[in-house]
Amino acid sequence: MSVALEKQESSSDQRSRRSGGREARRAMRAAPLADDIRPVRPGLEGGTYGPLSQNDKERIHEAVLTLLETVGFANAIPSCIEALTRVGATYGDDGRVRLPRALVLDTVRQAARNFTLYGQDPKHDMLIQGKRVHYGTAGAAVHLVDVEKREYRESLLQDLYDAARLVDGLDNIHFFQRTMVPRDIPDPLDMDFNTLYACVMGTSKHVGTSFTVRENVKPALEMLYAIAGGEENFRARPFVSNSNCFVVPPMKFAEDACGVLEACVEGGIPILLLSAGQAGATAPAAIAGAVVQAVAEVLMGLVYVNAIKPGHPAIFGTWPFVSDLRTGAMSGGSAEQAVLTAACAQMAQYYDLPGGSAAGMSDSKLPDIQAGYEKGITNVMAGLSGLNLVYESAGMHASLLGFCLESLIIDNDMLGHCLRCVRGIEVTDDALSIDTIADVCLKGPGHYLGNDQTLKLMQTEYFYPAVGDRFSPKEWNEKGRPDILSRAIAEKKRVLAERFPRHVSRLLDDKLRARFGEMIKLPRNKMGG
Amino acid sequence: MSVALEKQESSSDQRSRRSGGREARRAMRAAPLADDIRPVRPGLEGGTYGPLSQNDKERIHEAVLTLLETVGFANAIPSCIEALTRVGATYGDDGRVRLPRALVLDTVRQAARNFTLYGQDPKHDMLIQGKRVHYGTAGAAVHLVDVEKREYRESLLQDLYDAARLVDGLDNIHFFQRTMVPRDIPDPLDMDFNTLYACVMGTSKHVGTSFTVRENVKPALEMLYAIAGGEENFRARPFVSNSNCFVVPPMKFAEDACGVLEACVEGGIPILLLSAGQAGATAPAAIAGAVVQAVAEVLMGLVYVNAIKPGHPAIFGTWPFVSDLRTGAMSGGSAEQAVLTAACAQMAQYYDLPGGSAAGMSDSKLPDIQAGYEKGITNVMAGLSGLNLVYESAGMHASLLGFCLESLIIDNDMLGHCLRCVRGIEVTDDALSIDTIADVCLKGPGHYLGNDQTLKLMQTEYFYPAVGDRFSPKEWNEKGRPDILSRAIAEKKRVLAERFPRHVSRLLDDKLRARFGEMIKLPRNKMGG
Repeated sequence: MSVALEKQESSSDQRSRRSGGREARRAMRAAPLADDIRPVRPGLEGGTYGPLSQNDKERIHEAVLTLLETVGFANAIPSCIEALTRVGATYGDDGRVRLPRALVLDTVRQAARNFTLYGQDPKHDMLIQGKRVHYGTAGAAVHLVDVEKREYRESLLQDLYDAARLVDGLDNIHFFQRTMVPRDIPDPLDMDFNTLYACVMGTSKHVGTSFTVRENVKPALEMLYAIAGGEENFRARPFVSNSNCFVVPPMKFAEDACGVLEACVEGGIPILLLSAGQAGATAPAAIAGAVVQAVAEVLMGLVYVNAIKPGHPAIFGTWPFVSDLRTGAMSGGSAEQAVLTAACAQMAQYYDLPGGSAAGMSDSKLPDIQAGYEKGITNVMAGLSGLNLVYESAGMHASLLGFCLESLIIDNDMLGHCLRCVRGIEVTDDALSIDTIADVCLKGPGHYLGNDQTLKLMQTEYFYPAVGDRFSPKEWNEKGRPDILSRAIAEKKRVLAERFPRHVSRLLDDKLRARFGEMIKLPRNKMGG
Repeated sequence: MSVALEKQESSSDQRSRRSGGREARRAMRAAPLADDIRPVRPGLEGGTYGPLSQNDKERIHEAVLTLLETVGFANAIPSCIEALTRVGATYGDDGRVRLPRALVLDTVRQAARNFTLYGQDPKHDMLIQGKRVHYGTAGAAVHLVDVEKREYRESLLQDLYDAARLVDGLDNIHFFQRTMVPRDIPDPLDMDFNTLYACVMGTSKHVGTSFTVRENVKPALEMLYAIAGGEENFRARPFVSNSNCFVVPPMKFAEDACGVLEACVEGGIPILLLSAGQAGATAPAAIAGAVVQAVAEVLMGLVYVNAIKPGHPAIFGTWPFVSDLRTGAMSGGSAEQAVLTAACAQMAQYYDLPGGSAAGMSDSKLPDIQAGYEKGITNVMAGLSGLNLVYESAGMHASLLGFCLESLIIDNDMLGHCLRCVRGIEVTDDALSIDTIADVCLKGPGHYLGNDQTLKLMQTEYFYPAVGDRFSPKEWNEKGRPDILSRAIAEKKRVLAERFPRHVSRLLDDKLRARFGEMIKLPRNKMGG
């Protein structure tokens, strides 16, 4: 049977299963589990949770338009001023760029939406649409969390490559944005280039990365075009996006990042328009105000991108963070962060724009119970809100300062839980179970163990963690009281010893190494020999 | 100023603050923080999340009526048959009690709602209404989790008293239902009596407890009436409710529990009508079906209670659990549990009945990262769904088999996060922050540190954990890399050495000890001398 035919069949199974057909049940028992009937998968639809009412969203939108019209942005670079004024922005005597309401509304109407973020391997493509949810990594941590030594050390290029390799095999982490800064590569050009190299060699999932300055984009593009087999191929399926902090909140352009943005738009790289204010420090302490500022900032970025190239794919990256107001320090694991992120998801949906925001950023330094509840609460709320792209969702500690490879493995389970929650409850005639209950009570054995329905739903409706422990206390004791961190450490070591992705062939890598020479800092012998 | 006047004032502050009045701001700066402007508090309104659509709820309701009409319950005791048939139920030749639709609908209309669950101290009274959320404990764990030794040992009466004392001082745990079985007290009467004694002596918050058989209720009532200062006082403010497993799922009465239920109704004790089926074992594996069965079972209980005493306070306790279908073992920390509990909250709201269900039941044996995410995800979803009473929310491990005192302390922080999420986002003119943003950007310092708004919101809008760690990696390292479990152990020891609640006076306790003699097994010298 051809792949296409198989796909068709399983999708028709899926439809009949939802309508509860007997035929479909029979077909399912006969066939192996297709990807689209796994209990969780990328792109499940969220939206059952939302902290903002419709009226709240409209008031935020109005406030945003007012701010863009009256406050605007400082520090625009000449090319930015040129692009924005060309489409109708004003450039004031006070050096601020302001946007008339109509320009903002027109841009929102015409901006790219419902696009795909591609993987090098098409099975990792992500359709960013509606309230479809995808979890992934992000960050610029400067430390690796060494769980065995319970200490923080500087993060290295090899760590980043290892993180990419781990994510490549973790089903519930759908994309890999750069997580750590390679502190062993001080030169900014080398750092940008090798960061990207480590990411795209480590995983065939969609990759996000940053660039320090405009000039660093060019060699990166050259590498990406080579990997894609030509510029045209890359432009058709760009498998890297640019995480771009074009704004220094509140309401100022970041000059270097704007240069990068322009180069990436020109080179065919989708832009994550990232506004990362911090409530109580660089954004208002009022949660609603932090949302207003973030939305205003990202819409400025959206107008900017669309002024350069109408319809260029851009992600509505409202990422306001939260301060612990006692100290001013960031608190990524806070409850305020959870509601803030969910509200941002709702605003992206309000504009029907592809939304990306941050969750899963624990304040805890280690993968402990605090990290667990902070990650669980923020990630599940992001998913339930229908956020399209949940960045920072795995591996992150110390409010973005530390990244932990073992946490990636544990968080993959946690994100499986989140996705299962996003999936929610199917209410069909079959699922309502009237006949099943009546049979069991009136004719049957008085329990549902071994019942047809139970066996049928066991694989399709229930999520099972990989390292999470469900032993009884007795079993747990007999097995020597296993510890989740030890299991994660062992699993990390196993995977890192075995998994050397080869989606970029050795031959192609030889060519890259021939072309870029000494610039590539990740030794071949650390990449599986 | 009288308490009543104070209350009136602070509640009027609260109203003006929400409408953003300048006067209210001034008043707030002048006054100390009143209870109702703390960032989190009992009874915050949830309801921003719900996995079921209106149509889903109606279909579940229809399925429930069909089951009660056609399948009904087996194993009713004579007094139960008498009470139910008197109000219009049928008793079939097959020994099953069935309910006509009209009887169920009439009962739902007339049942008690919007009532208060009282504390011994009125400051702990909980108004159970609408989507007001309260978190508390529950359980019948047979082990205490010894965090220091990483081992499980049998739970003792002293452990239960200690748990009650800890909860008494933990702000985000609003009620104390019996958490552990005192394994050192094998006789059922002694066990029931001492369980209740340990709970009501340990905390002045509302207490929930169980009884093994009908006869054990009498001495308990005698003790409760004595503590209340007379039967009438207790009936006016019952500070204990009966957690009653009147049903053995699927759809059978539990004979002993029915006897207890009748004695408690008669004695003036509110009933938690607890249906604790397990999806895939004693309830359908389909989540929707597990909800249907639980709702049907609890409505049978509601008809029963109201047949005995119309309008007697009863909690709609749909507590379906989840099986790990690979093993059949319960999985309280699962994602399926989280959506199941939230759906139950929605069904209670559908009937406008006071809803209670379970969340926070980790599968992990220890307070580790798995426990954290399982507890966080399930508890926050229960709260966001607007569940009135979230049982099992703190301290629980191993899917209800192990209870941990240190986890109580950590979970109190976690529940603070959940409550902050339930509180959501206030969108007022002030909070939208247009003026604040404009000031900061156009005239001000370019940041919000020290801004009036920031200072104002610092205490009222932001939740700060007590043992949760927000140090930077540098500070953390300098402080010797503190560990959250060590902090919780130290805090537990501190509190247990100091906190001996005296809401029941020594004099009254003397009288109880004189009256009940040897029956009281908790030695006076273990209760603060």
